[in-house]
Amino acid sequence: MFVNEDNITDLAVQRWATAHSPRLAELMSALVRHLHAFARDVELTEDEWMAAIEWLTAAGRLSDDKRQELILTSDVLGLSMLVVQLNNKFSPQATPATVLGPFHIDGSPAAPYGFDMSDGIPGTPLFITGKVTGAGGDPIPNAVFDVWQADADGAYESQIPDIDEARLRAKYRAREDGTYCIRTIAPRGYAIPMDGPVGDLIRRTDISYFRPAHVHFLIDEPGHQKLITHLFQEGSEYLDSDVVFGTKHALVVRFVEQPPGIAPDGSAIAEPYLHAEYDFALEPS
Amino acid sequence: MFVNEDNITDLAVQRWATAHSPRLAELMSALVRHLHAFARDVELTEDEWMAAIEWLTAAGRLSDDKRQELILTSDVLGLSMLVVQLNNKFSPQATPATVLGPFHIDGSPAAPYGFDMSDGIPGTPLFITGKVTGAGGDPIPNAVFDVWQADADGAYESQIPDIDEARLRAKYRAREDGTYCIRTIAPRGYAIPMDGPVGDLIRRTDISYFRPAHVHFLIDEPGHQKLITHLFQEGSEYLDSDVVFGTKHALVVRFVEQPPGIAPDGSAIAEPYLHAEYDFALEPS
Repeated sequence: MFVNEDNITDLAVQRWATAHSPRLAELMSALVRHLHAFARDVELTEDEWMAAIEWLTAAGRLSDDKRQELILTSDVLGLSMLVVQLNNKFSPQATPATVLGPFHIDGSPAAPYGFDMSDGIPGTPLFITGKVTGAGGDPIPNAVFDVWQADADGAYESQIPDIDEARLRAKYRAREDGTYCIRTIAPRGYAIPMDGPVGDLIRRTDISYFRPAHVHFLIDEPGHQKLITHLFQEGSEYLDSDVVFGTKHALVVRFVEQPPGIAPDGSAIAEPYLHAEYDFALEPS
Repeated sequence: MFVNEDNITDLAVQRWATAHSPRLAELMSALVRHLHAFARDVELTEDEWMAAIEWLTAAGRLSDDKRQELILTSDVLGLSMLVVQLNNKFSPQATPATVLGPFHIDGSPAAPYGFDMSDGIPGTPLFITGKVTGAGGDPIPNAVFDVWQADADGAYESQIPDIDEARLRAKYRAREDGTYCIRTIAPRGYAIPMDGPVGDLIRRTDISYFRPAHVHFLIDEPGHQKLITHLFQEGSEYLDSDVVFGTKHALVVRFVEQPPGIAPDGSAIAEPYLHAEYDFALEPS
């Protein structure tokens, strides 16, 4: 059977449907159908096709362990956040999920209640306190969870060369009653990397290329669905225009300004600080 | 406006519709719509999304001037051939187009009528003769066109390291009456590169990863649409299963076996040879 414009999509779908795994057959057939539908809808020209190949090649060649331009591509197209939502359909009382992002590092150091993960890095002190609970509000004793964030320049540890120790990340443990206390510095909104193909593309649009200020969390407790999420600072810039579509109402919390005095961990603090309160409610698995 | 599963596609479409060029806005909006529709249709899991990112990254990192795994990806998904067909809707009497492939090299040496572009490379001698004409059959005097092909091992010049001179490629000139004569060696069917991500994927299916024997042509004459095409050998293996979907009925020609004697270029030939006849008919521009 030779091809023409009318039969080529069916032929390609049939071929990829021979994948030995039924799921791979489903995925590849659907990919062919949607990719062909895209090309037909826009009547993709040969020059545009070649430009797309060159763009993808550049994005792939730029990507490695430290920088992932293809994840960023998926992020700015809203695909990453769509996939998060398709796979994390929690009940309304559970904390919603958002994107993992490319900056999570495994194996962060264990951190007790009140641990200061900013370790002298400049910034406004921020305490985040609350409980880790099930979706019904019952505390999860001694819940352990990863916390990570960018510094005041928007830089994550993996973007900074020659870092020996964990920087602005830690694995916190809640207390027996589920309460936790994080000490860090206030995060800032930041621009995504704009020196690659994604930046070249975004500069040809009016899209804001910033993310609002946020702290990342990953909580993976037995008996509950893994929760990957952020907390965002209420009132911060870019909440309405998060370039990766990650902001959700339920994840925006107030960072309350507090005078010097006694900090939420019970210690004395000589400078003004911010205090955010949030209870993480995990969906049962 | 914060995202949820229902509004994220519309939000992403609206953002990319801010592209300054109307065509880029159209392309990116359609890309978002189709990509999201794919993810929703198959309910793409987070592990599958990550596997896709890693696959694309590997394909991009493998690609450079010599090897283009992302073009190969587009080829085996039928996308390249679809784009060819969308952009080359010629009248029925014109020679149809097929894929360019990644092996064309600009600046081939000029070759007169009868020139032997195989230059001693082992193989069965093949003469291809005919005319270059308009779609109405009127000859195009002195038409100039690129011819290129793989050797008997399926290797193109750009796949072989340290080649100094043009290898199995030339820029032929037709005579005043539009007739041309190419001397080369018979091409063979060959496997696409199977040592990368595309090969890994195809091995998980029953897809044949071969291309049938063919010679490439590129004819770009003033007053006519550029024609990029192949001629395929009638009866050769893989005609029905060309992994890049490139085969078309009108491009399959008989390679007639001939005894030693006088070759089509008028010279004496001491061994048996093959002779194919084909008239290239160009669509007016």
